[in-house]
Amino acid sequence: MSSNTDIKIFCPATVANVNCGFDALGFALEGIGDEMVFRKTKTLGVTITKITGDTLPMEAHNNVAGVAGNALLEAVGADFGVEMEIHKKIRSGSGIGSSSASAAGAVFGINQLLDTPVSNLELTRLSMKGEALASGNEHADNVAPCIYGGTTLVTGYDPFKVIALPPMDTVYVGILHPHIQIKTKEAREILPEKVPMKDAIAHSQHLASFVASLYEWDKALFADSLKDVLVTPYRKQLIPHFDTIETISKKNGCIAFGISGSGPSMFCLAFSKDNIDSYLSESIDLYKDNGLEVDGYSSKISSEGCRVIE
Amino acid sequence: MSSNTDIKIFCPATVANVNCGFDALGFALEGIGDEMVFRKTKTLGVTITKITGDTLPMEAHNNVAGVAGNALLEAVGADFGVEMEIHKKIRSGSGIGSSSASAAGAVFGINQLLDTPVSNLELTRLSMKGEALASGNEHADNVAPCIYGGTTLVTGYDPFKVIALPPMDTVYVGILHPHIQIKTKEAREILPEKVPMKDAIAHSQHLASFVASLYEWDKALFADSLKDVLVTPYRKQLIPHFDTIETISKKNGCIAFGISGSGPSMFCLAFSKDNIDSYLSESIDLYKDNGLEVDGYSSKISSEGCRVIE
Repeated sequence: MSSNTDIKIFCPATVANVNCGFDALGFALEGIGDEMVFRKTKTLGVTITKITGDTLPMEAHNNVAGVAGNALLEAVGADFGVEMEIHKKIRSGSGIGSSSASAAGAVFGINQLLDTPVSNLELTRLSMKGEALASGNEHADNVAPCIYGGTTLVTGYDPFKVIALPPMDTVYVGILHPHIQIKTKEAREILPEKVPMKDAIAHSQHLASFVASLYEWDKALFADSLKDVLVTPYRKQLIPHFDTIETISKKNGCIAFGISGSGPSMFCLAFSKDNIDSYLSESIDLYKDNGLEVDGYSSKISSEGCRVIE
Repeated sequence: MSSNTDIKIFCPATVANVNCGFDALGFALEGIGDEMVFRKTKTLGVTITKITGDTLPMEAHNNVAGVAGNALLEAVGADFGVEMEIHKKIRSGSGIGSSSASAAGAVFGINQLLDTPVSNLELTRLSMKGEALASGNEHADNVAPCIYGGTTLVTGYDPFKVIALPPMDTVYVGILHPHIQIKTKEAREILPEKVPMKDAIAHSQHLASFVASLYEWDKALFADSLKDVLVTPYRKQLIPHFDTIETISKKNGCIAFGISGSGPSMFCLAFSKDNIDSYLSESIDLYKDNGLEVDGYSSKISSEGCRVIE
């Protein structure tokens, strides 16, 4: 598809790790995401013309969207350039894939302007180049669901492979975002270099049974598999009142609760919107009573990733 | 089903761990297995009347089949007992589930004599009681495929859950059994208590992608996922010429190679019987040239577990 008119896209927020899938699993959220506008230019490379909603570098080589976009233009040897507007709605550093949405959105949007679009796998691989600018290393657990939509499993990097898992479109999601800052780097450094063998085995069983539960749509197995013995026990200390919020999630009938990405946002899953709403209300009250600023969103798992909206 | 006549069953050999599924995965083999005969008696409990093919304890409480069988009779409060013949064809200590076949066969056979048979999950749980006599701890990665047939995933013990995975009935299996002794206990002790976090993550990705590959029947993903970074690097030193045999498997077009259970048998998978046959032939020659006794079997993954044959 080639176009001389503006293309406007939506790029969703995403939840990575999802307890049992550290550095592997992620899913796209419904209704929470950024917007980006793309137009072809004669000048080669990416030119960022406008950024709203956040203070981010306008120079393409310092901007995750610019880096990812240029990676795609170079990969296909494009004989044109792209002007890009970035309208951030996802708060930077919130843990729901803000930089990933910019990186994935950039390659997805530019792909719409190519005569021969590249595959979702290649788009995901290229958007990691932008992601690396933000986090210091290339990983795909947020960019993959942002591109593919739904729930994705990154099975490895050599060879690089992403599996689009069966939909979980009857699952409701609550996102709770306490306004504290956690650097991805700090969240990485808090993790031990070695873990008990028995935890490694349990972790593999959890992720494998999560995958099987989606193919079988076995709700009990689904709920049982959404556990994390590897990472959350260390990272939860970075989030105030984590254990209390987890208790609130259980009390309200939610089936899974954990850190979104490297935090500070927490995700919560339930089979009913009522459970999510009452959980969010009680959790927000807890933070406010303790003098902390917080946002809460109710959403669903979106079967769609980045998409053209105009 | 209740019967006063003899029931004869076949209980298959099984391959556990399968590289990416340590303590979780297993599959049943076609054509390699024990036979057992059961008849109801008025005397309560299990009485072992005959054992052929191996030298094993005749006292039920010292025999894995006796222990497993009594566990089932007690669990259902049976008002009868069972006489049992055990005809071993699977060599003890070979690493293809010899004790598991006895334990699983015992509960499967007795279940045929009950008016209200119990579930496969409960049979698997009870047969672990027999398995524990042989290995010192209760695990289900061999007994589960022996009961269910096909390929099974044990997702955890609390709650205890087994998933019957989609069939891989186009996959050929080679079993190579060098006649050396490896104690399960020794094979456990050689493993480190802690493993690198990055290996734990990779292991979870391998097992999860193996599961997805079966549901999608993605042959490339299937082959890529059958790796082991956790256990084989330690255990392979217990098996002479392991690395050379692996090279032979690759040279002959096989897609996966590894230790069966805790060894010493090795399994090898391919999409063609010719690949398995040429691999086995070359590997057997290697061992014989080095003065080691060895057996080799060509098989398939059996969709059936224990079954009544007379």
